[in-house]
Amino acid sequence: MSLAESSWENNVRRVIPYTPGEQPKGKPVIKLNTNENPYPPSPRVLEAIASLDGESLRRYPDPTAEDLVRSIAKECGLDPGSVFPGVGSDDVLAMSFLTFFASGRPILFPDITYSFYDVWADLFRIPYEQKKLDPEFRIIPRDYFPENGGIVFPNPNAPTGVLLPLETIRQILERNRDVVVIIDEAYIDFAPAGSSAQSLLPEFENLLLVRTLSKSRALAGMRVGYALGAPKLIRYLNDAKYAFNSYTMNAAAIRAGRAAMEDGEWFRETIGKIVKTREASKERMRELGFRVLDSQSNFLFVTHRSVPARELFQALRQNQIIVRYFDRPRIDNYLRITVGTDEEMDALIRFLTDYLKDR
Amino acid sequence: MSLAESSWENNVRRVIPYTPGEQPKGKPVIKLNTNENPYPPSPRVLEAIASLDGESLRRYPDPTAEDLVRSIAKECGLDPGSVFPGVGSDDVLAMSFLTFFASGRPILFPDITYSFYDVWADLFRIPYEQKKLDPEFRIIPRDYFPENGGIVFPNPNAPTGVLLPLETIRQILERNRDVVVIIDEAYIDFAPAGSSAQSLLPEFENLLLVRTLSKSRALAGMRVGYALGAPKLIRYLNDAKYAFNSYTMNAAAIRAGRAAMEDGEWFRETIGKIVKTREASKERMRELGFRVLDSQSNFLFVTHRSVPARELFQALRQNQIIVRYFDRPRIDNYLRITVGTDEEMDALIRFLTDYLKDR
Repeated sequence: MSLAESSWENNVRRVIPYTPGEQPKGKPVIKLNTNENPYPPSPRVLEAIASLDGESLRRYPDPTAEDLVRSIAKECGLDPGSVFPGVGSDDVLAMSFLTFFASGRPILFPDITYSFYDVWADLFRIPYEQKKLDPEFRIIPRDYFPENGGIVFPNPNAPTGVLLPLETIRQILERNRDVVVIIDEAYIDFAPAGSSAQSLLPEFENLLLVRTLSKSRALAGMRVGYALGAPKLIRYLNDAKYAFNSYTMNAAAIRAGRAAMEDGEWFRETIGKIVKTREASKERMRELGFRVLDSQSNFLFVTHRSVPARELFQALRQNQIIVRYFDRPRIDNYLRITVGTDEEMDALIRFLTDYLKDR
Repeated sequence: MSLAESSWENNVRRVIPYTPGEQPKGKPVIKLNTNENPYPPSPRVLEAIASLDGESLRRYPDPTAEDLVRSIAKECGLDPGSVFPGVGSDDVLAMSFLTFFASGRPILFPDITYSFYDVWADLFRIPYEQKKLDPEFRIIPRDYFPENGGIVFPNPNAPTGVLLPLETIRQILERNRDVVVIIDEAYIDFAPAGSSAQSLLPEFENLLLVRTLSKSRALAGMRVGYALGAPKLIRYLNDAKYAFNSYTMNAAAIRAGRAAMEDGEWFRETIGKIVKTREASKERMRELGFRVLDSQSNFLFVTHRSVPARELFQALRQNQIIVRYFDRPRIDNYLRITVGTDEEMDALIRFLTDYLKDR
């Protein structure tokens, strides 16, 4: 194959090639880089998947994923008409951008946030403005008051883990009744009860919440996410989805997702363990000289008082501990560390204690 | 909820709501409307799915789907670098439109063809021109010779089942070296050996073939498809895919797809049965007064000499036999009937024999 460009290549869409978060194959590492749940999912999930038969594989899956939608609705205490399911929250978010941000006016999101918002905005040619977080990495509400084409932010935010209080969310919603406001609650299950904006849904029919089963329900491998909102919003999403691709969630994902939503006991127990490990880890990291943001998610966002994050990232990596480092303005001296099991966090702290002595 | 429009609704993308192909729930019907395989997939597929463990569910899936890619490459006799996997051929096609049809010049496809091409073109703002098939529903090669932004057509075509000879495909490719030509081979496994344009891949690095495991490998429920092309083409597809959504195929789909590709014996046996049933059904339908196109796919496209297709569609439906009717210009007197088992086709013929007597 020649290295020269062929003429057909002039017509190809060029993107900045992106390397997805490392998924080391077969190597024994402590993997704290992609915010996966350190515990396996509910045993009911494996049973549900094993129950698939030839008939359910040869047929197209239920395009409405009705079984899954009902179990999400039940768990969330809403009607099925308020639930839109998808192939992970990325799929749900991308479809929501496409559906709701069509005004031509710029949408608003934080400068430090989930890294796919600008990608999808560019993909669908949605103009956008990024609003600077304050020095404590908090959203400044008044930045979101001027006229705009829609708003999206994660709560807790990524990669900081910082939680925006419900009262601040209400302020933003009250000033934005003419656009759709999307709150990406990928990590909300790790925040204190009552932190979700779900209580505001009855009041704001322009509010959409997006969630995932990847983290809090340990189903990253199955790609299941969902949105909650007024039935009107959900109908628009379904119309768009069916118009572009009717069959996206496969039969296994629908069954696995349903089983995961139905095992509330597994869910509460696991979340409890992760939150306990997170809080203990915060303390231990602070004792080692880290500034640790008050994350309400399943990861920590930390910076050391003297050792550069990039150096720590590489030192950890050489010792088979993989965390996440973002080479981006304002956060390039931070590490994002997924909360693992107690044993994994012990190994991390042991290594850091040793590495940082005399620094 | 008020029926009046709220102000935020002005910003919503409006689409023509689409009702996906009927998937009747629980009712005992003969379902010949969505071109599913009448036989269950290879038993190895169920084993592969049942082998999923908690670890493979809690972790993100392999974004490269390496295991699946290798098995597709092996089965097709190509290098893994020539294979791009996706969530069914719809996902692969949509990503290909996005990646390869970025010139701003109109892309070309037939007026009677797979119904999502114009949808994706509109979605990605790709201009297009639809070229009329001839009265026998064949592609007219010279229609595809003028300057264009790319070409896409299924072979065999949908919903007609008509196969374009390899020599005609070569003519089109020779006149279109400056754009990407996509051949949607969703049904190629049901056509005679040697019908695929795969033999032309070494000669045309701008040729992309798209296939699915939904029909010939009985995996509609798992959403697995793939593209074959020169490594350069595949790299562009991967760059675009990773940029927009790294994790689309779930762990179950990757395993199921691999197992399905690896069971060549099951594949050949099943295809043989379906082709035999198809050819016998063609004869029987002709005897009943139908014009039956010479489909080389797993469906028949038929029109009756005296009874309108719409009437037949409804009569069949009332008798629990579901086929596909397209209320569109030029084909609104045709039915598309999936080739089922011999028993299902017997039931269809029995009903039609009775219904059509004295007509």
